[in-house]
Amino acid sequence: MKTCEITDAFGIDALKFSERSDPPLQQGQARIRVRAVSLNYRDLVTVKHGGARATRLPLIPCSDGAGEVVEVGPGVTRVKVGDRVAGIFFQSWLAGDITAAYFASALGGSIDGMLADLVVLHEDGLVHFPAHMTPEEAATLPCAAVTAWQGQVTKGGMKAGDTILVQGTGGVSIFALQFGVMAGARVIVTSSSDEKLARARQLGAWETINYKTTHAWGKRVVELTNGEGVDHVVEVGGAGTLEQSFQATRFGGTISLIGVLTGFAGKVDPNPVIRKGLRLPGIYVGSREMFEAMNKALAIQHTKPVIDRIFPFAETREALKYMESAAHFGKIVITV
Amino acid sequence: MKTCEITDAFGIDALKFSERSDPPLQQGQARIRVRAVSLNYRDLVTVKHGGARATRLPLIPCSDGAGEVVEVGPGVTRVKVGDRVAGIFFQSWLAGDITAAYFASALGGSIDGMLADLVVLHEDGLVHFPAHMTPEEAATLPCAAVTAWQGQVTKGGMKAGDTILVQGTGGVSIFALQFGVMAGARVIVTSSSDEKLARARQLGAWETINYKTTHAWGKRVVELTNGEGVDHVVEVGGAGTLEQSFQATRFGGTISLIGVLTGFAGKVDPNPVIRKGLRLPGIYVGSREMFEAMNKALAIQHTKPVIDRIFPFAETREALKYMESAAHFGKIVITV
Amino acid sequence: MKTCEITDAFGIDALKFSERSDPPLQQGQARIRVRAVSLNYRDLVTVKHGGARATRLPLIPCSDGAGEVVEVGPGVTRVKVGDRVAGIFFQSWLAGDITAAYFASALGGSIDGMLADLVVLHEDGLVHFPAHMTPEEAATLPCAAVTAWQGQVTKGGMKAGDTILVQGTGGVSIFALQFGVMAGARVIVTSSSDEKLARARQLGAWETINYKTTHAWGKRVVELTNGEGVDHVVEVGGAGTLEQSFQATRFGGTISLIGVLTGFAGKVDPNPVIRKGLRLPGIYVGSREMFEAMNKALAIQHTKPVIDRIFPFAETREALKYMESAAHFGKIVITV
Amino acid sequence: MKTCEITDAFGIDALKFSERSDPPLQQGQARIRVRAVSLNYRDLVTVKHGGARATRLPLIPCSDGAGEVVEVGPGVTRVKVGDRVAGIFFQSWLAGDITAAYFASALGGSIDGMLADLVVLHEDGLVHFPAHMTPEEAATLPCAAVTAWQGQVTKGGMKAGDTILVQGTGGVSIFALQFGVMAGARVIVTSSSDEKLARARQLGAWETINYKTTHAWGKRVVELTNGEGVDHVVEVGGAGTLEQSFQATRFGGTISLIGVLTGFAGKVDPNPVIRKGLRLPGIYVGSREMFEAMNKALAIQHTKPVIDRIFPFAETREALKYMESAAHFGKIVITV
Repeated sequence: MKTCEITDAFGIDALKFSERSDPPLQQGQARIRVRAVSLNYRDLVTVKHGGARATRLPLIPCSDGAGEVVEVGPGVTRVKVGDRVAGIFFQSWLAGDITAAYFASALGGSIDGMLADLVVLHEDGLVHFPAHMTPEEAATLPCAAVTAWQGQVTKGGMKAGDTILVQGTGGVSIFALQFGVMAGARVIVTSSSDEKLARARQLGAWETINYKTTHAWGKRVVELTNGEGVDHVVEVGGAGTLEQSFQATRFGGTISLIGVLTGFAGKVDPNPVIRKGLRLPGIYVGSREMFEAMNKALAIQHTKPVIDRIFPFAETREALKYMESAAHFGKIVITV
Repeated sequence: MKTCEITDAFGIDALKFSERSDPPLQQGQARIRVRAVSLNYRDLVTVKHGGARATRLPLIPCSDGAGEVVEVGPGVTRVKVGDRVAGIFFQSWLAGDITAAYFASALGGSIDGMLADLVVLHEDGLVHFPAHMTPEEAATLPCAAVTAWQGQVTKGGMKAGDTILVQGTGGVSIFALQFGVMAGARVIVTSSSDEKLARARQLGAWETINYKTTHAWGKRVVELTNGEGVDHVVEVGGAGTLEQSFQATRFGGTISLIGVLTGFAGKVDPNPVIRKGLRLPGIYVGSREMFEAMNKALAIQHTKPVIDRIFPFAETREALKYMESAAHFGKIVITV
Repeated sequence: MKTCEITDAFGIDALKFSERSDPPLQQGQARIRVRAVSLNYRDLVTVKHGGARATRLPLIPCSDGAGEVVEVGPGVTRVKVGDRVAGIFFQSWLAGDITAAYFASALGGSIDGMLADLVVLHEDGLVHFPAHMTPEEAATLPCAAVTAWQGQVTKGGMKAGDTILVQGTGGVSIFALQFGVMAGARVIVTSSSDEKLARARQLGAWETINYKTTHAWGKRVVELTNGEGVDHVVEVGGAGTLEQSFQATRFGGTISLIGVLTGFAGKVDPNPVIRKGLRLPGIYVGSREMFEAMNKALAIQHTKPVIDRIFPFAETREALKYMESAAHFGKIVITV
Repeated sequence: MKTCEITDAFGIDALKFSERSDPPLQQGQARIRVRAVSLNYRDLVTVKHGGARATRLPLIPCSDGAGEVVEVGPGVTRVKVGDRVAGIFFQSWLAGDITAAYFASALGGSIDGMLADLVVLHEDGLVHFPAHMTPEEAATLPCAAVTAWQGQVTKGGMKAGDTILVQGTGGVSIFALQFGVMAGARVIVTSSSDEKLARARQLGAWETINYKTTHAWGKRVVELTNGEGVDHVVEVGGAGTLEQSFQATRFGGTISLIGVLTGFAGKVDPNPVIRKGLRLPGIYVGSREMFEAMNKALAIQHTKPVIDRIFPFAETREALKYMESAAHFGKIVITV
């Protein structure tokens, strides 16, 4: 198997293209021919710094990949050769709520990830991806899309008629926009780029706010909603966003906390949470059950993930540097 | 105020057109100029038989009406003169789950209903209806639409990607079809009429089943869903439907029990409920909070209720007889 | 390994005591020295009739067993040699809601069960049982106790101050009584035996009803609750019980459907479910997550399961016949 | 009616004892002879500073009072003369989730409160208090106890076997301790006083931590729970507490945010909320439905609120100053 991995040093340029021998399949395992991998900010941090995530070296990074099953081990019943599948972020989080135990099975962190042409995963850690998607499109789903789904649907209980605030146009945010639209909600999108906001409108955004020209975007959201505030904020963090999100949310509303980018740069005063009776669930990707429910929605709606740019495997380092530039709208994909 | 009421005898032809003096407004009350009333099967039963519902005579029947506020009493803050409003079914069920106490405030049953040109209601018992609707359209909402909403959204937790089974094309069922479509679900509709099924498809139904020609519709639903069954059945009852609904529903799925028509003619064996871990919530209209959430969804989606036919006030008896014939698709409305 | 199994014929007397060779451990598996097994009505039906449950022969029956880990296979991390564990009913139902897939992993039905001195299970299918329990006591938990827990806690949302109706004094019902008491609820118990009702009072029952002398027990429950009805019924079925449970439950209350005995002999009219806005969740055992949450409660409260009688392994047939007699109060256990 | 009110200046010593004429009863209103009032930190702040809460002057402060009905207006059905009742904090929050509209009906803030011998309230804003309580005891319930109940039960879903962390020994915290014990949970209490911790143990606390001698109480909680953390923190705020609460809570656990004291002095980094998948609901008192459910629990368990000290009406100023000293354990009550 061909891999691109962190061997003994961190940094994008320290990534090595290697060959490993293909391991034999054990009970319940399947071999996947990976066709595409997508990048998340977490992968960039892992490659550059390792940190708490990369618990051992060498490590194949990247949680998100899709391809087809090329071999199955003994006792496998969930998949068969030829099936088009993606891996789930936490290989052992099948259903229910998060537990600490699942962190030992995080792809591209606690265990080897998807940046290889062949990977071996337990059948329980796979989902079939929607028939209308290419592997490149399916590779965008495991982290960003499942995160948005858990935030809006599983924890957020989004329903038709809700108003949703989505911050920026990164991977999670674009999925959140698409999920909001498909669920009959109306979605407000913020960005610092009018061009990106125009694209958000094409994807169905109801209103958009350029936070560079409208600094008090929380106040603007309140105006747009007749003084009431939105039902739900998909909060992806950054300096000072949470204070304005508190303002932008209606009494009894929900702010899904998603640390997709750099984490929350500033600290926040939680008093408005109490006064307004807000709900603040922390969201960290999600379970296989959530992934499969999401896939049904994507399949029924024929929704296509928004891919910004596709890089060949040999240009993995360039792909990571492109992510670093934060110029993208939607997902960055590497074909394998 | 002009009314059409049950005075001393039951039966459609015993309904009387009367004049009553306009009562003064008390603390918190508003006077509504009713523009339209819609009929529910419950109203037909009340007019014909009274039964448990009509607890006193004379009684102005009909729970569903919409119009505009023409006068407000002392202390009123929720509405003002000119507001376009509809009454809520249980005048005292504002939020939360059902309680026995709310039954004493059922419009057109425990208390006088909406079949009059002027009615007096407490401001708490009113909702503003969506701006894109006529009073005739808004008059269809309080009973049938709120029932479907509670069943699918509040109790059912419907989400994008779900598959919903809707039985027939009566008032509740058509709303359930529309709510399913707007929420990103796919909806299967049954009917005995291919013409009605064709109209259901125009409204967005994914699949349709003529239960006259496909008696084993439960089995057909399982086939349509690749052997899995639907996530949710909006069960409106009738002879033998529940057994097939048990078959048609996936493990862990939900069947909302709605006694919209004649009640359940047959009796049922609850064992499949246990084996499949089904949820069977009983649904009886809903609260003001549900009504208002639903109105937001209808407004955002610009959804129009499906009206079968509109009768003038003077032809109220004919409207009830038309309902009795069960020929309608959608709602029957009376203009006042 | 010594087993007691169904080989080629059904019936209590057709059970055979056999020897099987000990299988090697595969990835993730552990070998358990079973110390005790408890009986459920389902085991009796399986031994006598097989039916849908026993999908292959020979079959080692019984879902419920407890003992200690004597050997672990490669990759095992959840348990170690010496750990005191019990098996979970559905070996693959770890968390979340029920799915059809889990039925292929039902102990003592779809796969071999616990009626043996040694069994091999995947580590995922094991839970540690509370330190204050003997293996005999722990063996009572996997089916009956988890069923009651799912019904009352997971699906029922039982809280302090609730009033719970428990029918009879079988395994599930006694656990339901104990769970109700520990949660700060008050529990009403029905039985045909004043002696059993006296024992139920010793376990903390608030009120008891002898349904032989008080046929209209549903009405009696309403009286005991000042006309309101109970919040929750743990419905274990039998002829005509569900109708009275409808009567006994408050508006908006919950009836957990548990087919613990013979299933529901009669059929039922679901109309009261609608009018009263009842919730009827079907309950079929439960997940490992539920089992572990329950174990925490049992451990904190030092609750002891109620064991009626303990039989030695050699008297397995007598134990099953004793269960058939329905004379027991609490659980029947076999030591291995 | 005799009152003690804020007339034209803030400050404890500026409170005035006055006489007002008794207003006539309007539709749905009842007159209550207040027997006892309890103090909350919010009342102290209102008297001293007014702030956002006291929206008009003169204002009768204090949200919490209990007594008996002495007169009922037209149309009253929920209460009758002689009934022992308490007022609900938000007079219009009857059921469901919080909305902005309810704030206009906050007793002792938006509208006159309970610090008077006679008050007039709408029957909807009253609950019957448990029979085993004196009016002094019942007067402790409306704010502190309902807050704890919403946090632990309604939003927290507390169940037997949970481990709960309660901070300090103020009004909300003592109720949280009592609710935890009655629900079969085990409760860890923190305080700076060993004497108060000893009293907490008498009330059923499982473990106690003196945060003056054990600064790293979050770490200590993790040790006490075998490295897992608690299921639920009832977070009452103060400098730096939230960071340690994040540490003390298990993955997927809940921290109910309750701004009972001075609000959160510091600001907090929300990243642990995301990584651990925590839930952070903001809690602001609660609805009548919650109050009534809580009363059932208190009545069944014969739980007595913990009263620190009772002051006569004439010493209202002293009572407020005593609260200011923060020496109390449980509630401070004024008899009227």
